[in-house]
Amino acid sequence: MSSTAGQVIRCKAAVAWEAGKPLVIEEVEVAPPQKMEVRLKILFTSLCHTDVYFWEAKGQTPLFPRIFGHEAGGIVESVGEGVTDLQPGDHVLPVFTGECKECRHCKSEESNMCDLLRINTDRGVMIGDGKSRFSKDGQPIHHFLGTSTFSEYTVTHVGCLAKINPAAPLETVCIVSCGISTGLGATLNVAKPTKGSTVAVFGLGAVGLAAAEGARLAGASRIIGVDLNPSRFEEAKKFGVTEFVNPKDHDKPVQEVLAGMTDGGVDRSVECTGNVNAMISAFECVHDGWGVAVLVGVPNKDDAFKTHPVNVLNERTLKGTFFGNYKPRSDIPSVVEKYMNKELELEKFITHRVPFSEINKAFDYMLRGEGLRCIISMEN
Amino acid sequence: MSSTAGQVIRCKAAVAWEAGKPLVIEEVEVAPPQKMEVRLKILFTSLCHTDVYFWEAKGQTPLFPRIFGHEAGGIVESVGEGVTDLQPGDHVLPVFTGECKECRHCKSEESNMCDLLRINTDRGVMIGDGKSRFSKDGQPIHHFLGTSTFSEYTVTHVGCLAKINPAAPLETVCIVSCGISTGLGATLNVAKPTKGSTVAVFGLGAVGLAAAEGARLAGASRIIGVDLNPSRFEEAKKFGVTEFVNPKDHDKPVQEVLAGMTDGGVDRSVECTGNVNAMISAFECVHDGWGVAVLVGVPNKDDAFKTHPVNVLNERTLKGTFFGNYKPRSDIPSVVEKYMNKELELEKFITHRVPFSEINKAFDYMLRGEGLRCIISMEN
Repeated sequence: MSSTAGQVIRCKAAVAWEAGKPLVIEEVEVAPPQKMEVRLKILFTSLCHTDVYFWEAKGQTPLFPRIFGHEAGGIVESVGEGVTDLQPGDHVLPVFTGECKECRHCKSEESNMCDLLRINTDRGVMIGDGKSRFSKDGQPIHHFLGTSTFSEYTVTHVGCLAKINPAAPLETVCIVSCGISTGLGATLNVAKPTKGSTVAVFGLGAVGLAAAEGARLAGASRIIGVDLNPSRFEEAKKFGVTEFVNPKDHDKPVQEVLAGMTDGGVDRSVECTGNVNAMISAFECVHDGWGVAVLVGVPNKDDAFKTHPVNVLNERTLKGTFFGNYKPRSDIPSVVEKYMNKELELEKFITHRVPFSEINKAFDYMLRGEGLRCIISMEN
Repeated sequence: MSSTAGQVIRCKAAVAWEAGKPLVIEEVEVAPPQKMEVRLKILFTSLCHTDVYFWEAKGQTPLFPRIFGHEAGGIVESVGEGVTDLQPGDHVLPVFTGECKECRHCKSEESNMCDLLRINTDRGVMIGDGKSRFSKDGQPIHHFLGTSTFSEYTVTHVGCLAKINPAAPLETVCIVSCGISTGLGATLNVAKPTKGSTVAVFGLGAVGLAAAEGARLAGASRIIGVDLNPSRFEEAKKFGVTEFVNPKDHDKPVQEVLAGMTDGGVDRSVECTGNVNAMISAFECVHDGWGVAVLVGVPNKDDAFKTHPVNVLNERTLKGTFFGNYKPRSDIPSVVEKYMNKELELEKFITHRVPFSEINKAFDYMLRGEGLRCIISMEN
């Protein structure tokens, strides 16, 4: 039992007071975990596009003040009533979507879209009592994605924590908590390329490169990266990308370019941009008879995916995935093990590191499109 | 060696001289099989919508005179050079698409879309030498789908013949040659419902009912038939359909009706109408997380399949299939075995029988939408 269990903890958190304004490091109060909740000490967190998207609040109802952050690694400080499979000292990765282990989705072998704890970007409170565990001088501060990892301590539902190997370095494996698993799982769990196959990856950001890493692990012989930014190709080579196609360099649709390069189409494609035209290209570029296209990137709300039905009838498969089809509690520990046994390479995704006091620099890097992942160390 | 081997055979065939005009039983000449070809005696054939569609010739370049027919059962009369795995006397089902066993598709475990012998509705000649084996008084008559089974004798490529159990009654198993396998395989090979699951079938013609039969064989607990024609429900019950939805009976889209009946969506759907709106409904009615929709019906050439990409991202799968993903030579014999061991019920698909001399009656039944399959006996 830690000495802080059951007590309010006062600690530092990076609070977003207003949309698009720099975060402010504040001293906040973090209430003890309630039923089925866990309080954890965050050691490392990183910044993901989703944080920036909701911080900018351009496309949705703004919810401020709020503590962002959802890609992180930490250690359990205390647990609330009913929590039996975690205890203080356990190493955990908080995940933006959960696994209750009781709903139809959790019981299905195919789904990871838990009915209870599925991602909810609008909710700024705990699911149990509809209240926040964060406050400053009595004013509640909203949660984000049930994780709010831009804080030295945070409270999450037990279903949103993956208990991992305590020997795993949190400063590295924290990135398994979101983007890397999303891309990696899209390839390994959904596209499932066979050894020697050809895989196209649309979008060479961190998620796309994780998808390429998955193709490399699966033994794909050709990994074709598609991106509008040619400066990404050099870095992409580290992730096993063997060829690069910039749609801007061609007069014909990129699906035709890819078909020409591959005797009729790639075996698998993974779409990580969220652009609807890229989604259509990613589907139409797979080979008839056996091709599988997997959509990962999140579209705009008015987009329409459109194709001639014969493209489907010719035995192509279109699938979508959410968090790489990983169930957070059941599957994420095994992704960390892939790193521990040197199968999965994580270091190459980490291009920047900043102390917590300089968290706004991480936002600057991402807004400038610089690098892949910036790790924020909570203990400077 | 049969006494007719190597000779031209004179026999009766139902010739379509003009689009939409009744077939005429004529005496025709059937040339001996050339390299990689087989000549067979047709004992039973049945009529499929595809025959009628090309006979009407409303949507494509007309090719007449032509001998239609592609769903049939027969016995090998003689074989051409290079044919080693069939011999006179073998019982065979001709298939409108083939399996060369040598191309990438035939070597893929996933595809049945043979590069060499894939369905070609425009070709009216043999693939080997570009000539017809049929003539009347010296005038060539076009082939159809490489099968032309509305003739007492026909010539096909060896890759378009499935060698089946000689104990199987050809007057019944002849329907395995096309429509039944298309629907059955769509469910068993592609949708793959698990025991106890819920399956929606769009379109309750022969193909859709074969898809329902597949769901019954797979142990689905609910099979929901969707059709605009309520008179089809009574017959559909024989095929395991447990519930019926007529989209005309509802103000909201049928996908919402189905979601309401099934706590969020069906586990699997199979679309057998070819109507693009039914395709979209069939996709959107499957449950997020694990639902799989399979398209079977052939669309119009200007149709667009359109859906919001989030419907895909929420872990739905869209697949298309051609001939139920069966490889004609490798897999069709096992469908016949399913009938022989009383798993698959074929008799209920056969609603009419006519002698060859009355083949035009089969067209009348189909044009009136009466019944499912009409078997035409070549030996009256």
